[in-house]
Amino acid sequence: MKTDAYLVREGKKLSLKDYTTDGTKGVSKEEAEVYKPQLQLHLFKLQERLHAEEQQSLLVVLQTRDAGGKDGTIKHVFTGLNPQGVNVTGFKEPTPLELSHDFLWRVHAHTPAAGMIGVFNRSYYEDVLVTRVHGEIDKQETQRRYEEIRAFELSLQNRGTRILKFHLNISKDEQKRRFQDRLDDPEKHWKFSPNDLKERALWDEYTKAYEKTLSATSTATAPWYVIPADHKWFRNDLIMRILLETLNDMNPQFPKADFDPSTIVIE
Amino acid sequence: MKTDAYLVREGKKLSLKDYTTDGTKGVSKEEAEVYKPQLQLHLFKLQERLHAEEQQSLLVVLQTRDAGGKDGTIKHVFTGLNPQGVNVTGFKEPTPLELSHDFLWRVHAHTPAAGMIGVFNRSYYEDVLVTRVHGEIDKQETQRRYEEIRAFELSLQNRGTRILKFHLNISKDEQKRRFQDRLDDPEKHWKFSPNDLKERALWDEYTKAYEKTLSATSTATAPWYVIPADHKWFRNDLIMRILLETLNDMNPQFPKADFDPSTIVIE
Repeated sequence: MKTDAYLVREGKKLSLKDYTTDGTKGVSKEEAEVYKPQLQLHLFKLQERLHAEEQQSLLVVLQTRDAGGKDGTIKHVFTGLNPQGVNVTGFKEPTPLELSHDFLWRVHAHTPAAGMIGVFNRSYYEDVLVTRVHGEIDKQETQRRYEEIRAFELSLQNRGTRILKFHLNISKDEQKRRFQDRLDDPEKHWKFSPNDLKERALWDEYTKAYEKTLSATSTATAPWYVIPADHKWFRNDLIMRILLETLNDMNPQFPKADFDPSTIVIE
Repeated sequence: MKTDAYLVREGKKLSLKDYTTDGTKGVSKEEAEVYKPQLQLHLFKLQERLHAEEQQSLLVVLQTRDAGGKDGTIKHVFTGLNPQGVNVTGFKEPTPLELSHDFLWRVHAHTPAAGMIGVFNRSYYEDVLVTRVHGEIDKQETQRRYEEIRAFELSLQNRGTRILKFHLNISKDEQKRRFQDRLDDPEKHWKFSPNDLKERALWDEYTKAYEKTLSATSTATAPWYVIPADHKWFRNDLIMRILLETLNDMNPQFPKADFDPSTIVIE
């Protein structure tokens, strides 16, 4: 499967209506299920090398609307990796301490160390999305933050961190179905907040904010992907394939011994 | 299986020679393999509730000698849990900054938040084991640290953290086999350090330090288990069963809604 169909090219002015929310690229759910264990095993093996090598790291940024599938993606894509090499950080409303710093301060503390895969469940991109939609920052400040984000990501990359950014692209109807599902199932009530409906009313404003943000911050080396996310199984399959391509390209190696193993005698 | 046969009773003066390294309690490797997916599924489901509930947390401390199986335990027992709810922290030689603080400072920063399972790959127990064996602290300081550890663990428990401490108990022969295996397989060279042999030469000193430490710090609510760890599959099986018992006992629940779902209409 060619994954770069979902990539946002650097400098491209993106319109979300050009991206499908329910496409499945001719893949069936059954096929995806057959391939999943193989994909997981490949990812596990590459992660093992990445962790042993301890030279490079991978940062995965997950952004989407409410009920867009961040938690589900983490559950399905990253369960099966060795948690010793994965660090998931969720970013909620900033605390007073966090707000007393620049917006990258709290995320910087959680970027992946060499050998690690870091997953951001929401991220510093909230600071140009939710804040912009709610009028907390103006156009000029938004532009300034885009620049700061590009510089920040470049700084991570210079140290050996690869960055993948996924916008999980769901339709307004699919969000409605998922909200309703959360309301109908007592075990899912805790996932719903009446406040989610206020954000849903701002659907078009968020669309515009995502379009501007993705256009301004997708670079050749820290690209955004717009993932069709109405079908959870396709979303998972596609993200696993992109992770696999990326880790293959990073090509981590087990470290060589700095001693001669043949000379060692164990008493 | 009764797991409390492996528990160190509070106040008991423990002798490691009373604990098997290669026992398998009449369980066969084949049986353990059959039950593994079921155990994993149960753990996954309980972890999901723990994370949703966000009231309690679980801290798992792994200690053992070199090649004792800490990494392997994490790989086999915790792969399959949702990494969003698991936080693994490895403690290596303290940095100068860490050494400028008390020995609990660096670990406190990594204790599990409500809803999380925290796994310590080595821990603050190194500060009464390796330091004591190498004569960096005297008997009096060791006793003081035992008291500090008990108070620290009590403080975590008062906030809703359950603590499980596993000493992976391997034989000297098994350690030799594992070292040799690391020397023979180029993909495992990085796991071996010639320094490991110096620590191996202190086998009996470590035995004594473990015995004193486990005797002094196993409490009814933060118990040590001595896990027979020569057979990796039995070690994994036993630890999974103890985790399952503990999580069942913690009995986490999905939070109830603080709104009336039936009144909500999604536009």
